Amino acid sequence: MKLIDGGITAAKGFEAASTAAGIKYQGRTDMAMIYSTSPAVSAGTFTSNVVKAACVKWDMDIVHSEKPLQAVVINSGIANACTGKEGFDACEATAKAVEEVLNVPYDTVAVASTGVIGMQLPVDKLTAGAKAMAPKLEGSIAAGTDASKAIMTTDTVNKEIAVEFEVGGKKAVLGGMSKGSGMIHPNMCTMLAFLGTDVAITKELLQEAVSEVVCDTFNMITVDGDTSTNDTLICMANGLAENEIIDKKGTDYDSFKEALLFVCETLAKRMAADGEGASKLFEATIVNAKSKEDAKILARAIVGSNLSKAAIFGCDANFGRFLCAMGYSGVDFDQEDVELFFKSVNGTLKVFDKGTPIVFDEDEALKIMKADTVTIYVDMHEGSAKATAWGCDLTYDYVKINADYRS
Amino acid sequence: MKLIDGGITAAKGFEAASTAAGIKYQGRTDMAMIYSTSPAVSAGTFTSNVVKAACVKWDMDIVHSEKPLQAVVINSGIANACTGKEGFDACEATAKAVEEVLNVPYDTVAVASTGVIGMQLPVDKLTAGAKAMAPKLEGSIAAGTDASKAIMTTDTVNKEIAVEFEVGGKKAVLGGMSKGSGMIHPNMCTMLAFLGTDVAITKELLQEAVSEVVCDTFNMITVDGDTSTNDTLICMANGLAENEIIDKKGTDYDSFKEALLFVCETLAKRMAADGEGASKLFEATIVNAKSKEDAKILARAIVGSNLSKAAIFGCDANFGRFLCAMGYSGVDFDQEDVELFFKSVNGTLKVFDKGTPIVFDEDEALKIMKADTVTIYVDMHEGSAKATAWGCDLTYDYVKINADYRS
Repeated sequence: MKLIDGGITAAKGFEAASTAAGIKYQGRTDMAMIYSTSPAVSAGTFTSNVVKAACVKWDMDIVHSEKPLQAVVINSGIANACTGKEGFDACEATAKAVEEVLNVPYDTVAVASTGVIGMQLPVDKLTAGAKAMAPKLEGSIAAGTDASKAIMTTDTVNKEIAVEFEVGGKKAVLGGMSKGSGMIHPNMCTMLAFLGTDVAITKELLQEAVSEVVCDTFNMITVDGDTSTNDTLICMANGLAENEIIDKKGTDYDSFKEALLFVCETLAKRMAADGEGASKLFEATIVNAKSKEDAKILARAIVGSNLSKAAIFGCDANFGRFLCAMGYSGVDFDQEDVELFFKSVNGTLKVFDKGTPIVFDEDEALKIMKADTVTIYVDMHEGSAKATAWGCDLTYDYVKINADYRS
Repeated sequence: MKLIDGGITAAKGFEAASTAAGIKYQGRTDMAMIYSTSPAVSAGTFTSNVVKAACVKWDMDIVHSEKPLQAVVINSGIANACTGKEGFDACEATAKAVEEVLNVPYDTVAVASTGVIGMQLPVDKLTAGAKAMAPKLEGSIAAGTDASKAIMTTDTVNKEIAVEFEVGGKKAVLGGMSKGSGMIHPNMCTMLAFLGTDVAITKELLQEAVSEVVCDTFNMITVDGDTSTNDTLICMANGLAENEIIDKKGTDYDSFKEALLFVCETLAKRMAADGEGASKLFEATIVNAKSKEDAKILARAIVGSNLSKAAIFGCDANFGRFLCAMGYSGVDFDQEDVELFFKSVNGTLKVFDKGTPIVFDEDEALKIMKADTVTIYVDMHEGSAKATAWGCDLTYDYVKINADYRS
């Protein structure tokens, strides 16, 4: 597997376009289209929030059916959540506009939205935007990059990645893009992620790989503990790599899954690092826990704690907050077993040793905590399971961004 | 029942003292002592965090035994959590210092701490402080008020209250004090609360009343979602009201429980309103839910959401965030049933009507949201259960306070 340039258009047959449809933002692109020249099998994971956006319901119907998926239309600015029947009608109108211009059945067109909840989408602008993008579809890297920019809301950087790997002697590619900065606590965040691969794989195995990988990547990040109404990840596989179709587990499946894990973990970490107002990536790694589930819960509790996040922002080695978060996570453990370390590119420092605080050098702690990525590393000494979760610090800018989001 | 002046010293036989022991803060009081002239039965609720402070373990041993409770010694500045055996020894040394000066058995002396986790208490200062307070014990209102100030950390105001009520023809009093401003998400917050009543009641009924009332009051507040290692509520009942002892449920028990509910709810709301950095009290009321448990989970999800809290700070009527929080709370419901209102002393405004957003007057919304207390009122239309939770807004000052707590 090797990293290559590009994102959603990197794999064979994937094209993208974007446009400034004036949905809510002015003077920037706010719609993107992804198109596979060949009908693709799809897999997806969607928000676990019972208040699901209209577009999430629309996409679940397609992805969970046997239908192929050929295009995705995305808008930023308005989330199309809590919008009743009018919201669902907007999804259908968008898909039908795509049918008209691309000559693909409207029920093979997914739609995704991110932005303010509880506001209706301007359907005319949406359908006009879809129609404007169709003739501009391109397989170039630049087209993919532009699409990844059009779906941003409070994101400060676009997020895309692509890797090349081998399956059955054939070169295959997996590329993807994602957005997400606030309301990020995926159970399956408003994170949106779209992946395209030219690998040939059955729908069942694609979904299994996606579901497993999402649990260890996107579902292990948090910005603010708020699980969005719109979280959507869709992966399309169009088979244009011409490998022998992956229809059972084995070397080929493993190669694909390795690529998928790398792509998802990279996009997830970039989303966490670009969390609203964030100044750094905050990572928690739990090792030697009783079970994988325990390790995941503990790691997420640490990166999810407001007090921990504020300490990371302040470069304050207030390790008690991390232990406290572990303590209320719901996992049972004995603090007498626990060792806790601060880690970064600037060094490693043990601060808590099996029930007892260690007197440490504050200057050394400060140096470690000033890095762009700070890791809380915890050895539970009770088993062999491990997990890592990613979040970001809690800053003045988070409050600023969210105290007046709508205006 | 009527509100009277005072706090922890309001009931007969309760005395208090405070001192500046120099534990961590300089130039302010940081230790308090509560003393009942007559041995009291006690009841308590303690943090559900598995990382429990040494003092919590000490107090649980006493409160969960048949022993009477006669004194409580509290310090602010250092929490005595994650401190191993040395921390537990500090509790014992404190209780023994009290035994020496007050001539009460050391195992009838509770200790409580609040402040930084993972730092050892200076035992000499602690025992010297305990000894200095004993001769200063007084039943005056002023002594109680001073005690309520000595236990403050980032609190901006002290919190105390007292009520008078009748049991079996006798006048009885219940007074209390609490502190808590950050790391507040009680499952049983570092909130500390101490209540003293002169009512005569059995230990069993006292514990039952306390456990039930805490669930609807202190356990329904949140400042930051972080459940402390030190949360402690202790209620002492010394029987000096000379009522016939309450040993069964009935009118007398109900009178006491009503007083207890009022006192706990008042202290809990004051703690939420004084949450770290808070500019206002943020209340969520759920009505007509399927079950009480559902109503509580939904109400807590709303006041616990960072995005909701930031919107409350910004007076932004971004109602989708409240619906979103309800959606990820874990409670199953249909948004098509839900009505959502903004309420305050400045008016009531419906913004979401059974699945559909209502176009509302932004100026009216702003007026409502500018009040000191803002309520999100949600009618679920699916049952008859209700619950209220209290929190506060998320502000720049929260980040400021917590980015550099230790210095």
